[in-house]
Amino acid sequence: MTHWRPTLQTATREEGYDLAVKLARVTVKQTQPDTGVRDRLRPSYAENPDALIAVSQVVAPHFATVSAANDFWRD
Amino acid sequence: MTHWRPTLQTATREEGYDLAVKLARVTVKQTQPDTGVRDRLRPSYAENPDALIAVSQVVAPHFATVSAANDFWRD
Amino acid sequence: MTHWRPTLQTATREEGYDLAVKLARVTVKQTQPDTGVRDRLRPSYAENPDALIAVSQVVAPHFATVSAANDFWRD
Amino acid sequence: MTHWRPTLQTATREEGYDLAVKLARVTVKQTQPDTGVRDRLRPSYAENPDALIAVSQVVAPHFATVSAANDFWRD
Amino acid sequence: MTHWRPTLQTATREEGYDLAVKLARVTVKQTQPDTGVRDRLRPSYAENPDALIAVSQVVAPHFATVSAANDFWRD
Amino acid sequence: MTHWRPTLQTATREEGYDLAVKLARVTVKQTQPDTGVRDRLRPSYAENPDALIAVSQVVAPHFATVSAANDFWRD
Repeated sequence: MTHWRPTLQTATREEGYDLAVKLARVTVKQTQPDTGVRDRLRPSYAENPDALIAVSQVVAPHFATVSAANDFWRD
Repeated sequence: MTHWRPTLQTATREEGYDLAVKLARVTVKQTQPDTGVRDRLRPSYAENPDALIAVSQVVAPHFATVSAANDFWRD
Repeated sequence: MTHWRPTLQTATREEGYDLAVKLARVTVKQTQPDTGVRDRLRPSYAENPDALIAVSQVVAPHFATVSAANDFWRD
Repeated sequence: MTHWRPTLQTATREEGYDLAVKLARVTVKQTQPDTGVRDRLRPSYAENPDALIAVSQVVAPHFATVSAANDFWRD
Repeated sequence: MTHWRPTLQTATREEGYDLAVKLARVTVKQTQPDTGVRDRLRPSYAENPDALIAVSQVVAPHFATVSAANDFWRD
Repeated sequence: MTHWRPTLQTATREEGYDLAVKLARVTVKQTQPDTGVRDRLRPSYAENPDALIAVSQVVAPHFATVSAANDFWRD
């Protein structure tokens, strides 16, 4: 996996959400390392509602993990 | 991500649910930033039962996260 | 969201399950507010096994949330 | 929902799993109350691998909920 | 459900993973008790990437449940 | 399952993510033990956006499990 910060801690909920999106994308990179292939595939999912929803289904559990790691950014 | 309140805390369960819906939609915006494309896609999922159910599958884990963040809005 | 009780607490497991079903349906209402469209779509999912199973996939995490909120209705 | 025991507690893991299967099926009954329709649909999912797997995807989170409710039936 | 050990405790993570796979398969057996039918269906999912991935989507939450039951086999 | 370290503990979040990917892949190996078949199937999912997203949907809950096992690699 591309090297990132050592922990799941983030300063804000926005950063936490962005980390969840990044975590979701890493599996695609590890499964399909060829950037050219990934770029070629983008139009077929970025304009497909089912695929856009399915991507969101990946981010949701990752956001749950990052939220728990940050104790939900409670005050 | 669009700037929101810094925490997942909400005053009521309804606000918490609405936040979960917003969290679910953010990934679509980040994956497909073009508002015109997103608007063009709406009819194809807003009248498709499978897509409407799939959207609900995204909100459920986000609502779980927001609920835990708010200790389930216990009295 | 339609106004409901302020917390996820329910007196019984049955009420908790019914609340989970209601929570699952709210996203569909928020995504497709037109009652006429939703009614028109019902036959296409209410007699479709894949769609009936997919609806159940939404209720399960919501029931998990409501169960945790009620400490699993332990004696 | 059909009336069941008031709590998610079960004496054994097997009973807990059976309860999870029952919880998964309740949504189908609530969404499609017509027994005749449900019976008519059975052949189309009971001999369809994708549908059988999808049913299992519903039971898994319910079993997680029942397991937590029973503290994983620890000795 | 076929009779198994009374708890979700396992000596090792490998046993825990195998138990999660078994838990995932039980629903298929309960939904389609006919071994002949299940055997007949195997080629259609065992050589179908989507089905193989979907099976993995069932095992993941079961492994989470078994892991929690075993306190993640911490030293 | 191929023999691995006895626990889910990892030194870093990256190792934890790689373990989650490995956990996701084990079910495919157990369901389809024939390496030749798995290799033959790779092109059909590695260049299919829906399949790549579905793989990510398996890794997410496994990463949640590994993260909890490692107390989110908190400082």
